[in-house]
Amino acid sequence: MSNINRQITLASRPVGYPKVSDFKLVESPIPTPKAGEILVRAIYLSLDPYQRGRMSDAPSYARPVQIGEVMTGEIVGKVMVSQHPEFKEGDIVAGLLGWQEYAVSDGTGVRKIDPTLAPISTALGVLGMPGMTAYFGLLDLGKPQPGETVVVSGAAGAVGSIVGQIAKIKGCRVVGIAGGERKVNYLLKELGFDAAFDYKTVQNYGQKLKELCPAGIDVYFDNVGGSITDAVFPLINIKARVVICGQISQYNLEKPELGPRCLRYLIMKRARVEGFLIFDYASRYKEALQQLAEWVKTGKLMYHEDIAEGIENAPEAFIGMLKGRNIGKQLVKISEP
Amino acid sequence: MSNINRQITLASRPVGYPKVSDFKLVESPIPTPKAGEILVRAIYLSLDPYQRGRMSDAPSYARPVQIGEVMTGEIVGKVMVSQHPEFKEGDIVAGLLGWQEYAVSDGTGVRKIDPTLAPISTALGVLGMPGMTAYFGLLDLGKPQPGETVVVSGAAGAVGSIVGQIAKIKGCRVVGIAGGERKVNYLLKELGFDAAFDYKTVQNYGQKLKELCPAGIDVYFDNVGGSITDAVFPLINIKARVVICGQISQYNLEKPELGPRCLRYLIMKRARVEGFLIFDYASRYKEALQQLAEWVKTGKLMYHEDIAEGIENAPEAFIGMLKGRNIGKQLVKISEP
Repeated sequence: MSNINRQITLASRPVGYPKVSDFKLVESPIPTPKAGEILVRAIYLSLDPYQRGRMSDAPSYARPVQIGEVMTGEIVGKVMVSQHPEFKEGDIVAGLLGWQEYAVSDGTGVRKIDPTLAPISTALGVLGMPGMTAYFGLLDLGKPQPGETVVVSGAAGAVGSIVGQIAKIKGCRVVGIAGGERKVNYLLKELGFDAAFDYKTVQNYGQKLKELCPAGIDVYFDNVGGSITDAVFPLINIKARVVICGQISQYNLEKPELGPRCLRYLIMKRARVEGFLIFDYASRYKEALQQLAEWVKTGKLMYHEDIAEGIENAPEAFIGMLKGRNIGKQLVKISEP
Repeated sequence: MSNINRQITLASRPVGYPKVSDFKLVESPIPTPKAGEILVRAIYLSLDPYQRGRMSDAPSYARPVQIGEVMTGEIVGKVMVSQHPEFKEGDIVAGLLGWQEYAVSDGTGVRKIDPTLAPISTALGVLGMPGMTAYFGLLDLGKPQPGETVVVSGAAGAVGSIVGQIAKIKGCRVVGIAGGERKVNYLLKELGFDAAFDYKTVQNYGQKLKELCPAGIDVYFDNVGGSITDAVFPLINIKARVVICGQISQYNLEKPELGPRCLRYLIMKRARVEGFLIFDYASRYKEALQQLAEWVKTGKLMYHEDIAEGIENAPEAFIGMLKGRNIGKQLVKISEP
């Protein structure tokens, strides 16, 4: 291996959608692990909407990436050197090691992956945070019951595509909202959603939802917020559960936009809206992983990966993901396994 | 008794705030109960914000009052004639018998009141629907814990004043929001709230709330909605509970107003917003009534009644209540017990 580490750092805080120039590719020597540390070579980098939040210095649940600092992100990689008793060379691991080709870690938050379970990239998708997010968000907060109608926004994304499929497994009618005909076809023809529509061509979301949800909406899994979510509230059923996972339509706005107030629907319908962060479920990841892996193995849960090649293309791929260009999980392949 | 019954009917559907001319005082003969029925003479009429909803034909959880129909409302009254096995003459009862001096009922939804428990008017306030609403809304959905900060809007109203006092009983720091210096003084000096402010004179609700809630907001009991509620969301703590009881600021708008979207706060704070209707708790009213009566008896729970006199003054008093002129429970005294 060469002794150069390529990293993507934050060059400037984006205004609106990030631009490629908000990132910087820098080179530095590959670091050397000290006692108690490991050196990991990245194989796949995970691109996720939450990373947009880390580029901003607005208050959030996690500290922002500083200017000049390596972008935060989870990777799957291989342990190249281990000075740590719990890891050995050749171990495949996942952890929040950043947008870079090589990382040194003291093992904090780094977990070993079982490469026989499924392709290792799934540790960043269906068997990783997006899968966990879909699993706990839908089952724990959404509590879908057989015969209920579940609506998912961002339905063709890494989380939404899993939410919809789990809802199908649970016997629900599942309606997906996604951007573009290709995604709608993916939901209907590959993932078995009962109905779906393209929010980029439909004019009246409320009318379309009414048509596709003749029995109203019992669970809404919200990845996007904004006007799609506004259209859902008038259609919720009594005791509906609205799960707020993400608000990607709002992350790149230069100033907050106003919307119709939605709280009155909660009274009439005795309904609940709840947000969550997957980190709060850490003690139960194992339970989810087992179930998700079984569903993947038995073909009940499909996944799709959109893979960019090379760390240098991570910024472009990230911006594309924020604009909804990907289907399923957006990854960057950093090196061969 | 004379043989004339005076009733208030709905004359027209209000646009914005109701006007006195949206109501009509009509006279008709006092009805005669048939077998299985009772004749009730109204003593107190309850005025409540939900009645504004019934004047509109927008979809709601209950059917609207029709034009020409007697306005809906709960009364406390005395059974004058009984042809019903479960009631006898002289019984004091409460039920949804409308804005009128006399009503015939088959007993559906009519409950007997124990006049030794507390003044009979409390069956419409602290020991009635407003008390139940405060009790279940705060305890069941808000789940206040000792040391937490509870914020109540509409804090000097029939529900809000009880919410705040129960939160104090549960060991919370309680901050009230009300309109006018007189109400703020009532909260601070009579009800023992820890802090309160007058939304009519404070310019920046967010700044004021931040000042009065230095440890953030754990429970928000929302009676009003609108810009007061908008100011609460940025200040909620992790795992906060927002209880949506009413949205009185929105009921008289001629068209829905826009507001800042609030759902993103729910993600960062893993917080929950929930609406409820008190009717869903019917099976547990007895539990609440016992506890509320005990708190009233031991002086832990104070209540205030604003009493208008005469059925003919009900419309004016109702409009006043919607505009926040009352403190505590707004009643109309229809007759002497």
